[in-house]
Amino acid sequence: MNLSSLSLSQLRSALNNGELSAQEIAQQTLAAIERHNPALNAWTEVTHERMLREAARLDGLRRDGQPLPALAGIPYGVKNLFDVAGFSTLAGASLFSDRPPARADAWAVQKLAKAGALLSGMLNMDAYAYGFTTENSHYGTTHNPHDPTRIAGGSSGGSAAAVAAGLVHFALGTDTNGSIRVPASLCGILGLKPTFGRLSRSGSHPFVASLDHIGPFARCSEDLAIVYDALQGQDPQDAFQANAALQPALPTLEQGVEDLRFGVAGGYFQTWCNDDARQAVARAAQALNAQEEVTLPHVDLARSAAFILTASEGGNHYLPALRSMPERFEPHSRERLLAGAMLPAAWYLQAQRFRRHFQQQVLPLFESVDVLIAPATPCSATLIGQETIHINGTDLPTRASMGMLTQPISFLGLPVVTVPMQTASGLPIGIQLIAAPFNEAACLRAARALEQQGLIKAQAATMSVEP
Amino acid sequence: MNLSSLSLSQLRSALNNGELSAQEIAQQTLAAIERHNPALNAWTEVTHERMLREAARLDGLRRDGQPLPALAGIPYGVKNLFDVAGFSTLAGASLFSDRPPARADAWAVQKLAKAGALLSGMLNMDAYAYGFTTENSHYGTTHNPHDPTRIAGGSSGGSAAAVAAGLVHFALGTDTNGSIRVPASLCGILGLKPTFGRLSRSGSHPFVASLDHIGPFARCSEDLAIVYDALQGQDPQDAFQANAALQPALPTLEQGVEDLRFGVAGGYFQTWCNDDARQAVARAAQALNAQEEVTLPHVDLARSAAFILTASEGGNHYLPALRSMPERFEPHSRERLLAGAMLPAAWYLQAQRFRRHFQQQVLPLFESVDVLIAPATPCSATLIGQETIHINGTDLPTRASMGMLTQPISFLGLPVVTVPMQTASGLPIGIQLIAAPFNEAACLRAARALEQQGLIKAQAATMSVEP
Repeated sequence: MNLSSLSLSQLRSALNNGELSAQEIAQQTLAAIERHNPALNAWTEVTHERMLREAARLDGLRRDGQPLPALAGIPYGVKNLFDVAGFSTLAGASLFSDRPPARADAWAVQKLAKAGALLSGMLNMDAYAYGFTTENSHYGTTHNPHDPTRIAGGSSGGSAAAVAAGLVHFALGTDTNGSIRVPASLCGILGLKPTFGRLSRSGSHPFVASLDHIGPFARCSEDLAIVYDALQGQDPQDAFQANAALQPALPTLEQGVEDLRFGVAGGYFQTWCNDDARQAVARAAQALNAQEEVTLPHVDLARSAAFILTASEGGNHYLPALRSMPERFEPHSRERLLAGAMLPAAWYLQAQRFRRHFQQQVLPLFESVDVLIAPATPCSATLIGQETIHINGTDLPTRASMGMLTQPISFLGLPVVTVPMQTASGLPIGIQLIAAPFNEAACLRAARALEQQGLIKAQAATMSVEP
Repeated sequence: MNLSSLSLSQLRSALNNGELSAQEIAQQTLAAIERHNPALNAWTEVTHERMLREAARLDGLRRDGQPLPALAGIPYGVKNLFDVAGFSTLAGASLFSDRPPARADAWAVQKLAKAGALLSGMLNMDAYAYGFTTENSHYGTTHNPHDPTRIAGGSSGGSAAAVAAGLVHFALGTDTNGSIRVPASLCGILGLKPTFGRLSRSGSHPFVASLDHIGPFARCSEDLAIVYDALQGQDPQDAFQANAALQPALPTLEQGVEDLRFGVAGGYFQTWCNDDARQAVARAAQALNAQEEVTLPHVDLARSAAFILTASEGGNHYLPALRSMPERFEPHSRERLLAGAMLPAAWYLQAQRFRRHFQQQVLPLFESVDVLIAPATPCSATLIGQETIHINGTDLPTRASMGMLTQPISFLGLPVVTVPMQTASGLPIGIQLIAAPFNEAACLRAARALEQQGLIKAQAATMSVEP
């Protein structure tokens, strides 16, 4: 049985029916990772022992006739900035390679473990989560499963590649300025960046406290909704959690979208992307019957302000280590972090004030539209090492510019589901389905509608798990 | 009838019984302000016309047999950073003297107007609320009603002096680092700095968004509780309001304090004050049966961090004006604001991170104590122009150091009632009654208990309103 061809609920049924045991799933998954990861470089650590132990426990429950929890037997991986008990949390940085092992799982990993999911290991990323390409000088570049000469996107590139390759059913990533949405777009899968403050970040290595989000990747909207639902809940340890109400999204998926009003993000979002991206948005807009173009004011300022918050908070976070051991930093990030630490406080504060102002300008737009459609990246996956992309008649630096369409949206804190569309070249490209705060369900329903119309199909790439 | 000898509820009864009309109250108050303000310099603007109009409306209601609202006929004033419709909001700064008049009252002023209170005018302060002495080079120094050669404290010095002089029953001030508690201490009255995020700040001119609070001054705990209760309520415009639940404090005042556990703040708070302050704390501790000394860790760092937040946010706020018209700034503040605008973002962020850490360290202390007692100022009111105070064998700058005992507490965001004690010299000095977040009622009950034991008595100073 090809595990990756099954949806999460089909795989769970196969386990419930006894067609597969959890240990078989774990063994097949581990074997497939061993076979394909050398070419992919998605995993930085494979948690063989834990995965087999978790699987054995589930098979024991099944033998005893106990009910199986919601994610029983589902293989997954986590970006290597989530704490996993017994392993050093790397955050993509060899700076942390001699860290003491984490004493406990991150909050989200605890939730997934309790739900019966099988942890396969930790996944590659840009160092410190500061990048959009997962070209990591310490742990190597993650390759795009659709074309191994191309980047997977970042910073959660390992997470997206692992899911796109069909090696696990879902993965956890984080998104500060686009780090879930960019790799989801380039790897041709779905990714959910929830509302800022929606899911607990406890036990995930921080980068920019005012912008960091955690969220899942999956290959279909149903899987994404199931994992999102499993991640919900109140964490008293996370001071940034703004709304921990349990609002299961899965039951809303089959409601259709007739009551939802769709709009297309115009201006900046149509200007700073190529024809592939524009066409993907246009096809989704037609399928969803988007009635109006919505122009957000000052999106370019929002991107600048997001850069300032990122550089300042990242710089502050790493300043003690930058002072004491600069030689141990990833060269792509060292100067950016140092410069960030020296930005003036007045800039930082102005960026935070602009954020509130921008939110006040944009949030009222959701009185007349429920879901906004925008491209997720300016273009499809670029070649590894490609320094520039040519967009809107301009050569732009690849590493910074892959996030230019996602940054302004996370700066607002809005929930987004990124869904993959096809391009003429055959490479996927993602579009963002953006809703008002805490309306993740609308994004997921829109994704479901596009799937049902056959527009999006996140097929596992060639490396999928086979028996 | 001497208005200032009546409590707020006695004055309201006199109005209800017809012993006094609201217009008589207004006229007597305005006459007394006219007589005494030249020596006091508490008012920067007297709102004659509005006060008489508000009073006439109340007398009309009374004639018609309508019920009178909670603060009917009570004269008050507001720090000149609250918007009052039709007047330019000065924030103590001639920089703003040509501002267009406010189009509406501040949220708090609207609440008080609706409750029937009579606005006498706007009260002097340190420019931009950046100071602890109300020595304002543009609008003059406010004099302490207990000794006009001495400062009233600041930045809400006009508010405290107006109440201490007996010219109004209460006043509104703001407190960023101590600007309610310092002048309450030096003027010998009560002041309430509520929990950060408790009362709406809408329509008050901001200084440091992360630290600004609004709150009332009064001459007894009952009056303070009545005004605090009138100021409660949800303001959808104030994004910083963290808890807007209506929790009337007045009904709790007569509960006594037998169930409250009192502690004395040791270490820093006992070191950085003179014998007057220490003795005041000791008397209150004895009266309230304080069982333990509680030592807060790293209070000196908390003060430094509060300075960094203040300088950075204040600097950011005024940077455009500092660039375009530095000559119009108050000389006591210009260089501080400029320097603040140039602090590194990494310092600012570290201060905010330390704030969360410090809160995590200190809040658990309230599991074993309900109210902490600490001095409010290192000493009683100093002479106007006095550059240094001698505390703990050290000459300290007066302007910055008057707030050294209040800054760490507002940095925590905790509610505080400052109550006046007597010193051997005859000048008053305040102590802080500090509780856990949103437990303003405990502070007010403690204040009430000290009043009932005769320890505190905020008698109106010599200038009180007479018929």
